[in-house]
Amino acid sequence: MDQKTKGKLYGIGVGPGDPELLTVKAVKAIESADIIISPTKKMGKPSIALRIADPYINPETELVIMDFPMLSLSEERDKLEAQWGENADQIQKMLDDGKTAVFLTLGDPMVYSTYSYVMKFLLDRGMAVETISGVPSFCSLAAHLNLPLTQGEESLGIVGMTQPEAEVNAVLDAHQNIVVMKVSANAKGLAEALKKRHLENHFVMISNIGMANEKVTRNIEDLEGKVPYLSTVLIKKQNEA
Amino acid sequence: MDQKTKGKLYGIGVGPGDPELLTVKAVKAIESADIIISPTKKMGKPSIALRIADPYINPETELVIMDFPMLSLSEERDKLEAQWGENADQIQKMLDDGKTAVFLTLGDPMVYSTYSYVMKFLLDRGMAVETISGVPSFCSLAAHLNLPLTQGEESLGIVGMTQPEAEVNAVLDAHQNIVVMKVSANAKGLAEALKKRHLENHFVMISNIGMANEKVTRNIEDLEGKVPYLSTVLIKKQNEA
Repeated sequence: MDQKTKGKLYGIGVGPGDPELLTVKAVKAIESADIIISPTKKMGKPSIALRIADPYINPETELVIMDFPMLSLSEERDKLEAQWGENADQIQKMLDDGKTAVFLTLGDPMVYSTYSYVMKFLLDRGMAVETISGVPSFCSLAAHLNLPLTQGEESLGIVGMTQPEAEVNAVLDAHQNIVVMKVSANAKGLAEALKKRHLENHFVMISNIGMANEKVTRNIEDLEGKVPYLSTVLIKKQNEA
Repeated sequence: MDQKTKGKLYGIGVGPGDPELLTVKAVKAIESADIIISPTKKMGKPSIALRIADPYINPETELVIMDFPMLSLSEERDKLEAQWGENADQIQKMLDDGKTAVFLTLGDPMVYSTYSYVMKFLLDRGMAVETISGVPSFCSLAAHLNLPLTQGEESLGIVGMTQPEAEVNAVLDAHQNIVVMKVSANAKGLAEALKKRHLENHFVMISNIGMANEKVTRNIEDLEGKVPYLSTVLIKKQNEA
């Protein structure tokens, strides 16, 4: 029997937080899976993605918490690659046993996800893999604020404050609209970059979106002070943000 | 009675094409709506978004096809704004009558949608508006190809070939990963820009995604020839595309 025809891995995006923002297709994949894989950075503890998908998981379905250590990709790539390989081995065994496995990811599986690394290993080994899109967090942020990400003949950039300053600056200069992720990694640097470009009144920051302590601010001083860990900024040069 | 407490408009993203890629929340909004609004550029003809949402629409729900003429935003903004205002008037009347209306948009409502303009008019008038995210087309493209849009400490740019050349070039230079929309507007220009940057082997073009005549190519010559109208390019500088 062809190995490729045995089991199958579905990599699914559970969206940004609200369980109702899962797609119909993702719900069906979860409901019919033999195994649910929940990746975690907190060694053995359930992930946010699992909490979001929970209402759709049959209590009798096997659940596998898979560790993905929180290491720096640029500094410890070798260690990470070894871990991804081990995780891929574990998934391959499930598929060899003829199981259907669902790998949960926050947001969309093709936007900053751990799944994307493991997927590559499994594809290289000829395994059956299907990726099911989810709503990325930046779309949800825009919907939450009723604020367009991009319109007409504008462009959109997505950048993280963990990237080198020159890369962040190039993105800030290249677009009419910019989503800045991981703001708390260098919020002061972002505040300076905004002031330098006279964009103090063209940004909005949202922290802890959808949670009880959610905060929305358009005040540059809030960016210069202590910024919550889960904060994202949307910059709109040609409109009010 | 406060006008704001009467009806409500839901702007929902129906995703990229597969009806199963609607979110659970979008399906519920469609099922419980009094009126479904389907915007069209083809005067009076149903939109692709309506075809995607169709399996969830109760045949007894009122359907309104709303015209959005296909005019250039940069050249005929006044005419467009007049039309958006008229459409907003029509929706406001529905809400004043206490109706719940659902405005369908392809992909995500905050990414290049007609809805976003009408939303602004209604918000300015104090109407109740809720935007429900959908899967954007570029996420679906990446899932379809099992190809990550962005990973780790990389960034992502989204640009259209209808934008000025200098803007396109700035985006191509600013990011590790770039989604180029509306490729057919200037495919030869994109081919030149890729060659100039030695990126001939770092792109993939997908045309007519999910349709019978879908085509995926990594050959720069296909970009220099006749390119189908519905084509998108994903550029990945640091990996094979």
